[in-house]
Amino acid sequence: MWLTQAHPEVLPRDERGDVVWPGARQHWRATSPVFREHALRLCRAMTEHYRGHPAIVSWHVGNEYGCHNRFDYSDDAMHAFQDWCRERYGTIDAVNEAWGTSFWSQRLTDFGQILPPRFIGEGNFPNPGRLLDFKRFSSDMLKRFYCAERDVLAEITPDIPITTNFMISANQSALDYDDWAREVDFVSNDHYFTPGAQHIDELAYSGSLVGGFARRRPWFLMEQSTSAVNWRGVNPRKQPGELIRDSLLHTAMGADAICYFQWRQSRAGAEKFHSAMLPAAGEDSRIFYDVCELGADLRALAQAGVLGSRLRRSSVAIVYDVQSQWASEHPTTPSRDVREWTEPLDWFVAFAEHDVTTDVTPVHTTWDDYGTIVIPCVYLFDEDVADRLRKHVRGGVRAIVTYYSAIADMNDRLFLGGWPGLIGDVVGVRVEEHCPLTSMYPGALDHLDLSNGACAHDLADVVTSVDDDTQVLATFTAPPTSGTDGLPALTAHRYGDGTAAYVVAGKLGADGIARSLPCLFDALGLPLADDDAAGDVLRVVREHEDGAVFEFLFNRRDHDVAVPDIDGDVIIMSHATRTTLAPTGAIVVRR
Amino acid sequence: MWLTQAHPEVLPRDERGDVVWPGARQHWRATSPVFREHALRLCRAMTEHYRGHPAIVSWHVGNEYGCHNRFDYSDDAMHAFQDWCRERYGTIDAVNEAWGTSFWSQRLTDFGQILPPRFIGEGNFPNPGRLLDFKRFSSDMLKRFYCAERDVLAEITPDIPITTNFMISANQSALDYDDWAREVDFVSNDHYFTPGAQHIDELAYSGSLVGGFARRRPWFLMEQSTSAVNWRGVNPRKQPGELIRDSLLHTAMGADAICYFQWRQSRAGAEKFHSAMLPAAGEDSRIFYDVCELGADLRALAQAGVLGSRLRRSSVAIVYDVQSQWASEHPTTPSRDVREWTEPLDWFVAFAEHDVTTDVTPVHTTWDDYGTIVIPCVYLFDEDVADRLRKHVRGGVRAIVTYYSAIADMNDRLFLGGWPGLIGDVVGVRVEEHCPLTSMYPGALDHLDLSNGACAHDLADVVTSVDDDTQVLATFTAPPTSGTDGLPALTAHRYGDGTAAYVVAGKLGADGIARSLPCLFDALGLPLADDDAAGDVLRVVREHEDGAVFEFLFNRRDHDVAVPDIDGDVIIMSHATRTTLAPTGAIVVRR
Amino acid sequence: MWLTQAHPEVLPRDERGDVVWPGARQHWRATSPVFREHALRLCRAMTEHYRGHPAIVSWHVGNEYGCHNRFDYSDDAMHAFQDWCRERYGTIDAVNEAWGTSFWSQRLTDFGQILPPRFIGEGNFPNPGRLLDFKRFSSDMLKRFYCAERDVLAEITPDIPITTNFMISANQSALDYDDWAREVDFVSNDHYFTPGAQHIDELAYSGSLVGGFARRRPWFLMEQSTSAVNWRGVNPRKQPGELIRDSLLHTAMGADAICYFQWRQSRAGAEKFHSAMLPAAGEDSRIFYDVCELGADLRALAQAGVLGSRLRRSSVAIVYDVQSQWASEHPTTPSRDVREWTEPLDWFVAFAEHDVTTDVTPVHTTWDDYGTIVIPCVYLFDEDVADRLRKHVRGGVRAIVTYYSAIADMNDRLFLGGWPGLIGDVVGVRVEEHCPLTSMYPGALDHLDLSNGACAHDLADVVTSVDDDTQVLATFTAPPTSGTDGLPALTAHRYGDGTAAYVVAGKLGADGIARSLPCLFDALGLPLADDDAAGDVLRVVREHEDGAVFEFLFNRRDHDVAVPDIDGDVIIMSHATRTTLAPTGAIVVRR
Repeated sequence: MWLTQAHPEVLPRDERGDVVWPGARQHWRATSPVFREHALRLCRAMTEHYRGHPAIVSWHVGNEYGCHNRFDYSDDAMHAFQDWCRERYGTIDAVNEAWGTSFWSQRLTDFGQILPPRFIGEGNFPNPGRLLDFKRFSSDMLKRFYCAERDVLAEITPDIPITTNFMISANQSALDYDDWAREVDFVSNDHYFTPGAQHIDELAYSGSLVGGFARRRPWFLMEQSTSAVNWRGVNPRKQPGELIRDSLLHTAMGADAICYFQWRQSRAGAEKFHSAMLPAAGEDSRIFYDVCELGADLRALAQAGVLGSRLRRSSVAIVYDVQSQWASEHPTTPSRDVREWTEPLDWFVAFAEHDVTTDVTPVHTTWDDYGTIVIPCVYLFDEDVADRLRKHVRGGVRAIVTYYSAIADMNDRLFLGGWPGLIGDVVGVRVEEHCPLTSMYPGALDHLDLSNGACAHDLADVVTSVDDDTQVLATFTAPPTSGTDGLPALTAHRYGDGTAAYVVAGKLGADGIARSLPCLFDALGLPLADDDAAGDVLRVVREHEDGAVFEFLFNRRDHDVAVPDIDGDVIIMSHATRTTLAPTGAIVVRR
Repeated sequence: MWLTQAHPEVLPRDERGDVVWPGARQHWRATSPVFREHALRLCRAMTEHYRGHPAIVSWHVGNEYGCHNRFDYSDDAMHAFQDWCRERYGTIDAVNEAWGTSFWSQRLTDFGQILPPRFIGEGNFPNPGRLLDFKRFSSDMLKRFYCAERDVLAEITPDIPITTNFMISANQSALDYDDWAREVDFVSNDHYFTPGAQHIDELAYSGSLVGGFARRRPWFLMEQSTSAVNWRGVNPRKQPGELIRDSLLHTAMGADAICYFQWRQSRAGAEKFHSAMLPAAGEDSRIFYDVCELGADLRALAQAGVLGSRLRRSSVAIVYDVQSQWASEHPTTPSRDVREWTEPLDWFVAFAEHDVTTDVTPVHTTWDDYGTIVIPCVYLFDEDVADRLRKHVRGGVRAIVTYYSAIADMNDRLFLGGWPGLIGDVVGVRVEEHCPLTSMYPGALDHLDLSNGACAHDLADVVTSVDDDTQVLATFTAPPTSGTDGLPALTAHRYGDGTAAYVVAGKLGADGIARSLPCLFDALGLPLADDDAAGDVLRVVREHEDGAVFEFLFNRRDHDVAVPDIDGDVIIMSHATRTTLAPTGAIVVRR
Repeated sequence: MWLTQAHPEVLPRDERGDVVWPGARQHWRATSPVFREHALRLCRAMTEHYRGHPAIVSWHVGNEYGCHNRFDYSDDAMHAFQDWCRERYGTIDAVNEAWGTSFWSQRLTDFGQILPPRFIGEGNFPNPGRLLDFKRFSSDMLKRFYCAERDVLAEITPDIPITTNFMISANQSALDYDDWAREVDFVSNDHYFTPGAQHIDELAYSGSLVGGFARRRPWFLMEQSTSAVNWRGVNPRKQPGELIRDSLLHTAMGADAICYFQWRQSRAGAEKFHSAMLPAAGEDSRIFYDVCELGADLRALAQAGVLGSRLRRSSVAIVYDVQSQWASEHPTTPSRDVREWTEPLDWFVAFAEHDVTTDVTPVHTTWDDYGTIVIPCVYLFDEDVADRLRKHVRGGVRAIVTYYSAIADMNDRLFLGGWPGLIGDVVGVRVEEHCPLTSMYPGALDHLDLSNGACAHDLADVVTSVDDDTQVLATFTAPPTSGTDGLPALTAHRYGDGTAAYVVAGKLGADGIARSLPCLFDALGLPLADDDAAGDVLRVVREHEDGAVFEFLFNRRDHDVAVPDIDGDVIIMSHATRTTLAPTGAIVVRR
């Protein structure tokens, strides 16, 4: 408070130019030289004070960068954005070309005319290229700030590894964590459970994605909750058993440390209703007993040698691209109901229903060693990604590409000539138009049935031609007036030694994808578990360099399920027997 | 961008006083002398440059005035609003009288105290008279700006006709187009289709309204989309056939030119997902083929002589008043669910169900030559309108007046003594109270059934007395506690040589009106087609001074319908045979 | 308008710092020295002008303080808030301790760092202690302003009693009226009916609460509507009979004067659609006839001697605490669906269903003479309240305490060790966790059934232990995975000579409470009317010091109900006979 009183110029401004006042947290702009000076002085003083202290095993710098100050529209930010654009584009003409400023008379003649995307009036629409770049810039400025703090620490205590807690879950996209992950000594994450039916799947998905950013090396779970959080509109508690099960599942997905926000529940302040290891109710409480039990479980796992082991690579990769999500958030798209993040999770869940635990994999990392690559609504494409996909498929890999992929280049400029752009030769289909589906207008088309029993909502493609050697696996069934009846919904196309399936059908949801996977896999020439019990148990395997293998089994249902044959020594058996897993049950086996 | 950088004082301010920053479009205030100077210099330079160029057949000035800068609350606007009030009212006492400033201590002692309706805090309520005048003022300022640009052009190229594209559709009310229409050499309009069931009816309605503003002279369709737009939350595409059908229907309604936004779909920018004549998919596309086919159709129509012909006048006029809509948008009315624009469209559709294509007619134009005049929620009335209605009905014309008509004078001050004000003698009913209907409060009255099977929602009148010679055509059926059971819902009243029906029943919707029209027309002594197939085909006739008659037939259903007997030479037969019209079918006949 | 033109510094600022412009009403900040100077000058001039005028029987000062200017975030407000904190806490360390500023680095080193809770960015969370204090401060500043005006009047006309109109209804919590009531010579209230099913009960509840603030002395009904208001989104009219019935019910609840906003409906201005004693329709109208009839009824009541009589004290008190409501409005609680105000009303209605008209009683007044005290979601507790409850129950009184009571101290800091805090010994249960219920997340727990047939929504407690002598009256029935199946839902606990019931079950609604009251009362050892007709009639009794008793009977249903035996002289019989009450019927008897 004293700093913001002495230096109000460190406070962020919102898009209207209004001061974001102190009284909560993160009341600072990443581009403020004044704040930076004070912050680095603090870093230096603290590090020098604690240098050599035996309890310091790692520095965790800052907290959830960008949680509240992701975007800043101040003049500091404006100048920094101008510099960032100069750095990226070199000339103002290159900016004009990238952002398509000829449209709507937005041509810039000077870097000084570049503004953050400040308030343009209700119902007006921002330039997509500028908006996408501002998201990149905002991630970069926070990263630069983190790096400056990190460098002070590293200078004084060069042997202490450094991290900062990311906020990775299925519906988060604040920062470009695949980029940030290059700047930490090890990845750490904050994860808060999704209440209800998606609890376990979303948690596993997020863990897989964290592992993707960490390049499959072990990571830390820095924050989670023992029970309810406080920041949702309604904050359901965790049901009994979930506290332990969730931590074991994070471990299964690659976590080598399980921490919580927070040790002791705060009596006061904005988060006083957030659960903790030691709750407001005190030590005599279910939560504290479970925390103690978890401690024993984690000790057992550590003693069994799980630390340092790595998640076994899946045969299937689901590609994730935060920048595609950023671009698809623009208000003037075919449908605001299409947001990129739902599709990767839906594919992850659909595969789990067939007993396949997939790897969620950042778009810009290597895809080597996967037999199947899923491209779910990867809206932005460049030649590099297209070439890699082409090369992999040509070499025998199977690809599944969905609607709303390869729509635009890295500056959010549409590919011309039909979609998917750049990779039409791979998938062997040509999309002329999007077909948004909505119940917003009485009488408008609000869904499309597929011949395989699945159903598309929100968005589908209109495929008006396919290559001669493209196989149509399923078609749409719709009123003749819609112009979609009988059009391709799922296709497969031989390309080199591999096959690329194209999922025209739009948003099928996890159920619709699960229903479609058998025919897709059949066309890809791959086997797939397809009985009703296939998805009962989530299996995850961690492997140690020393040869030890740890198999984790979890119940994906809300009823008891049968345990598959266990091969190895049981280390943990929580809410389970050798034959039955209770709903929150978990088994860990070592062999 | 250079101009807003050099002269930020041209940027509008929103109601909170916040700058509306550039980065989208229309970043200028209509009252800025600086912007005006630059804009007129541009007009002059451009006109002098192109003067005499043979390709210039007309000037289309600006683009969609007021689309994004309709309201400006800057100090420039404040001063201009003070001048506008001084011009309109003469004295500050006249302003006080007009706005009823005695209420809530708003008495003004100086024109300098007049403010635009800036932010007054959440949950507070603005003065209705001031708000209505600010809407008039905002339309006037944009018109004054347009006229200044126009005058520069007219001075240099006096023989080139001038227009600007209006934004007229059923749910638009940005500007007073009946006033603007006096300032263009010919009217032109931008129209974007309503997805779903109202597609064809709303389009025909809008065309009829454009014709009303154009005083039934031919007009230009300046913009429409070949398929999806980009600015809705969800943007359904046009179904096959609608591209051609819509253009033929605009032609039928009076358009002599069919243009599109846009020729070539933009790769970049805020509207890149907006369809175009040449779509992103390229020339090998359904859209481009349809555009070419439409070109041939339009050539055939031109060769057949349709240009310059006028829409045949209907026997029924539906009165439209944008200022009534403006006034009824005020937050403190009987029900915010009542907005004027839905009612004229509902009447248009209901008549179409009985094979009557009506003329939508501005309130301040002549109503001569109509046999029936519908007054649907014309909330504002003055003596002139009342006198005209009285004179017409007395002379034999039939009138249908609905609930929420003649509620207030032109300054939005209530008529006293019972509603409808000024014309109670004509309709022969007296309304004491409004009866809002809502499901917002459990147990509150949320609808009223009529004895004729129709049903009222949102708002009804409480008619506590009718004249002795008023005929009650239908009554309400409701719980006795509501105090509305048995009250009049539809009435008719002989007045002079005519009859005036009063539709008490509130918002009946198009279905309820269609169901009520037979008994209304019976009471009015008029015939009405009333079989199930009467509304299958929309018929529109254009007549040329040389005697040529063009009849257009369209299918209003989503299934095939029978074609009525064709009398004349078929010029266009699209998705149709001589006996059957497909859902998007159209036939044009010349005789 | 001239004042805000001459002194714009009197205008409030909203939380963003934006000026709240004039053009509606209450355009002033309570802490402005400039406005205060002008306002007091006006008070003085007016009072001196009218001093001695025989028509002045009372001063009604201002109008609905805080209706639109409750919160002001200007620099004037900031300085006053700093002074208020200095006054309340003495040292900045005491502020830090009260607000828990250690959390989120909010430690203050100087009173000058204290800000009003200005805009902190979307999705960030304010400090609860500061927010609660700002609500107290805002109530205090308006009260201070009122008192200053009052004191001018009292100085000049010391014999004229002074009041100001409060805004008390079930869903209002703008000011701390129990505190304000100490500053008026008699309480007066503005009450506007709730349309639909809650109309009569909410009105009676509000009247009872007004009586609580007035310490059961008679009060004035300063404003109500004859029919519709204008400020809701939809404004249903009053149904026939409600105008008179409502006024009689206000009288029954303790009103000695029945006034209306407004005498004559305004033609113009923001409230022109607000009903009045003389409506826009004129004197020949149902409303005006009813007003006249009401006048006769009120005269009859006055002549019968009802003035000055007091509401007979109920055996049951329902405790009300506006500050608990203020605290529970904070965005980061277990569930934003829990707001304190619904619970007292639900209990009032549930008791009415069993023929008990309860007293709604402020938490900080005496609870003497009640046999039963209900503590419904009284979220804030201090030692004083806990001691009083303990003392009463120990002495034989029955208490019913609900979920979400005694959660935090007066600075909104949680009680530790299990809830309810401070009074766990009285109720004999210990709550470890809240159990929010929601349909927001598919598959999450959205309700809990009780073994007695009631059902909890929104929030329940998780009671993990009860004292040995605690009796479990009902349990939850829920899926085993939820961890709530079989847990206590209703309990009773002997404490001294009394019994305290604890309603774990969360929000049961009026129906669920009504269904649970029989078993609760049975456990409390109290009788309760429990037949289907028990709730048909609302009975209220006023008693005069001279021994006269006035019994008021109202129909709580929307159909005719039977009148209980009448004992005494019938003074009013409106929409009723001696045997039947019509839905809006009322009977007043004197004995």
